[in-house]
Amino acid sequence: MKIVKVSGDVSIKRSVDSGTEEQREAAKKIIGDVRRSGDAAVIAYTERFDKVKLSSLKVERSEIEEAYKEISDSLVSIIQEAANNIQSYHAKQQKASWITTEENGTILGQKVTPLDSAGVYVPGGTAAYPSSVLMNVIPAKVAGVKRIVMVSPPGEDGKLPAGVLVAADIAGVEEIYKIGGAQAIAALAYGTESIQPVDKITGPGNIYVALAKREVFGDVDIDMIAGPSEIAVLADESAKADEIAADLLSQAEHDMRASSVLVTTSSVLAEEVQREVTAQLASLPRREIAEKSIEDFGAIYLARDLKEAIEVVNQLAPEHLEIVTENAMELLGQIRHAGAIFIGRYSSEPVGDYFAGPNHVLPTNGTARFSSPLSVEDFQKKSSIIAYSEGALRENGAKIAQFARLEGLEAHARAVETRLKKFN
Amino acid sequence: MKIVKVSGDVSIKRSVDSGTEEQREAAKKIIGDVRRSGDAAVIAYTERFDKVKLSSLKVERSEIEEAYKEISDSLVSIIQEAANNIQSYHAKQQKASWITTEENGTILGQKVTPLDSAGVYVPGGTAAYPSSVLMNVIPAKVAGVKRIVMVSPPGEDGKLPAGVLVAADIAGVEEIYKIGGAQAIAALAYGTESIQPVDKITGPGNIYVALAKREVFGDVDIDMIAGPSEIAVLADESAKADEIAADLLSQAEHDMRASSVLVTTSSVLAEEVQREVTAQLASLPRREIAEKSIEDFGAIYLARDLKEAIEVVNQLAPEHLEIVTENAMELLGQIRHAGAIFIGRYSSEPVGDYFAGPNHVLPTNGTARFSSPLSVEDFQKKSSIIAYSEGALRENGAKIAQFARLEGLEAHARAVETRLKKFN
Repeated sequence: MKIVKVSGDVSIKRSVDSGTEEQREAAKKIIGDVRRSGDAAVIAYTERFDKVKLSSLKVERSEIEEAYKEISDSLVSIIQEAANNIQSYHAKQQKASWITTEENGTILGQKVTPLDSAGVYVPGGTAAYPSSVLMNVIPAKVAGVKRIVMVSPPGEDGKLPAGVLVAADIAGVEEIYKIGGAQAIAALAYGTESIQPVDKITGPGNIYVALAKREVFGDVDIDMIAGPSEIAVLADESAKADEIAADLLSQAEHDMRASSVLVTTSSVLAEEVQREVTAQLASLPRREIAEKSIEDFGAIYLARDLKEAIEVVNQLAPEHLEIVTENAMELLGQIRHAGAIFIGRYSSEPVGDYFAGPNHVLPTNGTARFSSPLSVEDFQKKSSIIAYSEGALRENGAKIAQFARLEGLEAHARAVETRLKKFN
Repeated sequence: MKIVKVSGDVSIKRSVDSGTEEQREAAKKIIGDVRRSGDAAVIAYTERFDKVKLSSLKVERSEIEEAYKEISDSLVSIIQEAANNIQSYHAKQQKASWITTEENGTILGQKVTPLDSAGVYVPGGTAAYPSSVLMNVIPAKVAGVKRIVMVSPPGEDGKLPAGVLVAADIAGVEEIYKIGGAQAIAALAYGTESIQPVDKITGPGNIYVALAKREVFGDVDIDMIAGPSEIAVLADESAKADEIAADLLSQAEHDMRASSVLVTTSSVLAEEVQREVTAQLASLPRREIAEKSIEDFGAIYLARDLKEAIEVVNQLAPEHLEIVTENAMELLGQIRHAGAIFIGRYSSEPVGDYFAGPNHVLPTNGTARFSSPLSVEDFQKKSSIIAYSEGALRENGAKIAQFARLEGLEAHARAVETRLKKFN
């Protein structure tokens, strides 16, 4: 892991896979086929890509009960506890509709309404993450979405991973389909004989899933298109090198394109972390992935002082930020851009990935400059409320008509005056 | 305007212009040129499209002072009053950062941070809308965005419309450039010698502006891509036909592709509105536009009862909804999808377009199913806060490690255990 002295602007070396022309065309073709042929197309693509011929797409209750038997009781109760924490955190994001009233009778307000339905994509294969199920489903549930649909590609045995099914059940999903890829996104967006369409699709997937989500966006809503995961650790000489190195590697094991960065004011820590990363890498099961990630996208930035270090962090706008300095909490106000901020040495990133409560679906690729973690709001929408009384229109109608005429919109002016002229 | 009896599902006939391949290529080329050549490209395109060779892109204070002289004092004070109303409504959307604390020392929370910068596109020519300036700038201002940049294409005299400049000044914009089209979007997204890039671009424009916004999306954030404007009026026999007709026409005069729909339980009202629309059309300055819009995209839906009428409204998910029925307020809870809801006969749509306070940038094209009016939140982002104490990690660390191993992420488990093993 290279040590770089900060001078001037810094940016994370990032790798965004926006797909090849060929992949884009493939995703489009699959979507077209599903729109035309419905279930038949979904079943055919599942046979082709997932190597299993399904007679029914829907997960039965018996499959969920079987999944519980495959998972230890202690894991079930850990998943349940994580779900409770996530539920409790997201409940605090809940917002009420509100109105304001004025003496002249005017009522203005904002009505908050859950989406009618939401679809959650859960990746399959080696990347089967029960935690993703919880993080995508629970905010929708808290938002009040009545119909939550989950899709995930089946294994060659025609089943979904037990952990994923148990997490879905704990989160309260009642409609699960064993389908994945662009065909699942198309089914969620446009519906088939056996699947009703949804209003919004969230959740990560492979490049075909990402391209399909981009393609259906507008007809339905989607969450962000996630890039490779990132961590930046902001640390001073008070930090422990072994802990920092372990946290950097926990990000690096995700993906060869993941990015792990240390920003520090301490050259001693910089060198210690460098050594620790190499040492800890040796025994990691996912060593190959982590090593490549550290080599290509890892860096240790050495800043002259804390002010410069914080400026580097703000330039990076990282998905995850750990602050491991004396008085870490005091620095919070200076952090302008980060998806999630982990404060102090005991807030190792996995604490947030699985358990603490805040969402682990976070803005990547520098989009923390303008994007937020997945939240309850992503599953609600608002409507403005405007109720003018006779008195309010009497008071303001002529002004509104005059404003409309400034913009050359005579019919707007007349709409108001049709009422005004009846006031005598 | 045709009367259609409701039977089964109903959808607004909509026209979405997603541009031709040629237009997409043109927008891409302009963006590429601006990224390469900066100001020089912007100036060249402005000369080509806006027919004016600018020596400087920035609007000077003297131009704003001149604009004030062109606008009557009464209009200035109407714009000011509208701005105050908009400011006051949006201030109620403001949300505080929050934390929760637990006895074991855990702190969780959500930090709300304004975007560093925002760019507002204001269309030029005949569609110069000072109200758009207020509706886009004020939420950003309330959100706490420090740098707000406005761009708008100049007339052949090298000036911006006086109303637009006055509205920008009242809204508090301090950085205005006389540029438009895809070249302005590119300059906002990537910067030039004289324009620093921004984090988010909002505001409507022509097809090239829309295509350019789609193109830069991801590098910066954008608001929705607006489709043609829509109104649905839900009315019973208590409504006045002349008022409903005037409101339908105020929407229709915007755009030949605008959609104006009445949904009513009263066949008497249906026929009266039909007659009134024809009568009122005759004397409208923008008759040609309104007539075409009503012909192509207008309709009167006759429902058997209020329940069916409300179901039609929810299927339409209109941008603007007027409810003109007895006890209109009581129906609010049954409306699931609408951008803005205008209640009662005195809440004619122009009341909200200009003056009342809620935003007039609203989800079109059925996207009210999952989208919201432009708001303060669109100019802020959130960061999760996670601070685990030693006690909290001691209590939960082993569970977190176990969850990580369920997902096959050993380095995640070890990151936590690196701390745990130092305890006891």
